[in-house]
Amino acid sequence: MTADVTTQLAEIKRGVQDLLIEAELAKKLARGKPLRIKAGFDPTAPDLHLGHTVLINKMRQFQQFGHEVIFLIGDFTGLIGDPTGRNATRPRLTPEDVKANARTYEEQIFRILDPEATRIDFNSRWFSSMSAVGLIEIAAKHTVARMLERDDFAKRYKGGQPISIHEFLYPLVQGYDSVALEADVELGGTDQKFNLLVGRQLQEAYGQEPQIVLTMPLLEGLDGVQKMSKSLGNYVGIAEPASEMFGKLMRISDELMWRYFELLSFRPLGEVEGLKKAVAGGRNPRDVKFELGCEIVARFHDATAAERAQADFIARFSEKALPTDLPEIQVFADEKTGDIALTAALAAGTGLAASGSEARRKIAEGAVRIDGEKVTDQALRLPLGAAHVLQLGSRRFARVKVVRKG
Amino acid sequence: MTADVTTQLAEIKRGVQDLLIEAELAKKLARGKPLRIKAGFDPTAPDLHLGHTVLINKMRQFQQFGHEVIFLIGDFTGLIGDPTGRNATRPRLTPEDVKANARTYEEQIFRILDPEATRIDFNSRWFSSMSAVGLIEIAAKHTVARMLERDDFAKRYKGGQPISIHEFLYPLVQGYDSVALEADVELGGTDQKFNLLVGRQLQEAYGQEPQIVLTMPLLEGLDGVQKMSKSLGNYVGIAEPASEMFGKLMRISDELMWRYFELLSFRPLGEVEGLKKAVAGGRNPRDVKFELGCEIVARFHDATAAERAQADFIARFSEKALPTDLPEIQVFADEKTGDIALTAALAAGTGLAASGSEARRKIAEGAVRIDGEKVTDQALRLPLGAAHVLQLGSRRFARVKVVRKG
Repeated sequence: MTADVTTQLAEIKRGVQDLLIEAELAKKLARGKPLRIKAGFDPTAPDLHLGHTVLINKMRQFQQFGHEVIFLIGDFTGLIGDPTGRNATRPRLTPEDVKANARTYEEQIFRILDPEATRIDFNSRWFSSMSAVGLIEIAAKHTVARMLERDDFAKRYKGGQPISIHEFLYPLVQGYDSVALEADVELGGTDQKFNLLVGRQLQEAYGQEPQIVLTMPLLEGLDGVQKMSKSLGNYVGIAEPASEMFGKLMRISDELMWRYFELLSFRPLGEVEGLKKAVAGGRNPRDVKFELGCEIVARFHDATAAERAQADFIARFSEKALPTDLPEIQVFADEKTGDIALTAALAAGTGLAASGSEARRKIAEGAVRIDGEKVTDQALRLPLGAAHVLQLGSRRFARVKVVRKG
Repeated sequence: MTADVTTQLAEIKRGVQDLLIEAELAKKLARGKPLRIKAGFDPTAPDLHLGHTVLINKMRQFQQFGHEVIFLIGDFTGLIGDPTGRNATRPRLTPEDVKANARTYEEQIFRILDPEATRIDFNSRWFSSMSAVGLIEIAAKHTVARMLERDDFAKRYKGGQPISIHEFLYPLVQGYDSVALEADVELGGTDQKFNLLVGRQLQEAYGQEPQIVLTMPLLEGLDGVQKMSKSLGNYVGIAEPASEMFGKLMRISDELMWRYFELLSFRPLGEVEGLKKAVAGGRNPRDVKFELGCEIVARFHDATAAERAQADFIARFSEKALPTDLPEIQVFADEKTGDIALTAALAAGTGLAASGSEARRKIAEGAVRIDGEKVTDQALRLPLGAAHVLQLGSRRFARVKVVRKG
């Protein structure tokens, strides 16, 4: 315990969505003993992107302050699968699957967390051997009315959509994990707030001091609009090559850059404030973005790889005679197709071409490039989330990002 | 299988409240194979009265037609007790308690059922070893909305009274018993209709042919108004001495007598119709009531005991010069106190005395008797459900029953 309560609280609150209840957390911290920090993770095969690391970064923060971090894999429900058989996307996992997935998690999270100070646990440890009687006793500690307060349950109940009774048991399972672990704090995404509160209530019912509930927001993807998600294509995977990762991070807007500093950077708040002031005073935001990119690449690769990625990025752009500090223009994907024709992006989208037909002609002439690469397909379309430097002739450039309208 | 489907159906429907679904039952019967008849009983110490035997009589009827009767003791939930700790009236039973209670049940029910053809089972047999996973899988087969349709749940939910989630699991436990037993028919009281239907739905979810649900009404107590209940004092316990039992049965009204014939007598419907016609044609209903009393006393004692009880009854009344066939007069209990002053019963209630003060004076003179016994307490009150022959002087008699007003 190196830092005092005030310092800890300030950093712990950084980027947080909900903190229930701050006064209780201050009290727990003031005791000066390491707290037990729980965060639950899905047992299905993980392939983490920066969005997932927001929570893991928060775990690291607690770890740095000397607290005990428990990375809890919720494999018990995974071992059941979907008992209704309706949800094909929730297959039953074998214990071997769970072990393999845990190893995949480890490889990824230990790029952020200290392996020595991280406890990986599985809720099957207490639930596999639990009897029906045990589960009934847990179920006795919570009420139907409270459960129906959860947003999705309330909506489905009112809307006449069926809720299976076992769905009421899953938040209890997750909540009981906090009892089994005697958690002091539970971290989760904002969508987990209700379940985290169930843990709090169950701990009270079992005579324990209730855990602090701390939720982190969903990280915006590279587009700055949608949440970061693999299916939306607006993500940075933590296993991506250094140059890929760096290049993607260079695409984000200056505004989003500060959000990423808040949620992804390990630099103290004071330093981030200093960077903001520098930019306000005239420093090129591109250079600050370079610092962010280097920090993140170094985390998942190393410092040398980060330097090389930055150098490569600059070289690639000068070689292709691409400016590295173009302002970004948002172009809108067609609502139906979810993408935009390259010709539309060149014309109406950015004004590089005077019209769609000029854009088509220029493509035919070989005068259009995307990220320095010549394009010949007049029918080419750019998907939602795509971010590129478009070039028409030798002097007209635009950095575009395809976003959803409105 | 001696009786044909039509005969069986006619007797099975006798006295029944709900039969879901008759056509399905006819189909099951038509297969000519013994059906599996399930009825669940509470594991707490039983002390049966005639009200409980209505259901057991129906089990006997199925047994007589050659079907397999399962007397299921729901000991699993009894072994849990009340996990909320709120309900002191639901203590946790030990396995020894359960065994002792089962023996008490046997002693009583085998006065009605054929021990050779009765299977006594315990749902702990499949539930004690069930895991939490198994229970979750059952819970996946039913929905919250359906469960909230149960009257008491609906009322409590709307009224803001808490429903613990484990309360949703108990109907599933009971319903799953039908799956475990592959029941063809489940019998229960009218208050069990919802739970019996859950069994039907769960069987369908588990790919079984759904059970027939058959509910029996609650038997009216000796007062003909309230349901028979020990706490209301309007019951005939099946372990009571023959003369006690006979005497209590003689108190019932002529109207209630036919209800008792329907639900308690084993005489075929045709014979009961014959008795009704005889009374309509002038036969003294008292004599028919004697027949009912003798049948029931003989069931729980023997034919000799029944004859003796009847003879004693007649002798006792003639000795005390009490008429045995007085019409019954209902007197109303005070709504607040739940009883009536003897003086009020003598005066306003029956008109045996001209006024309350005459009644008091007659008691003081020793001229008032209850069931032939002299009364001296002017403040005596008769509780709700009480039924007596009141006597004032040597010639004025009234048979009264204390009932709730309205």
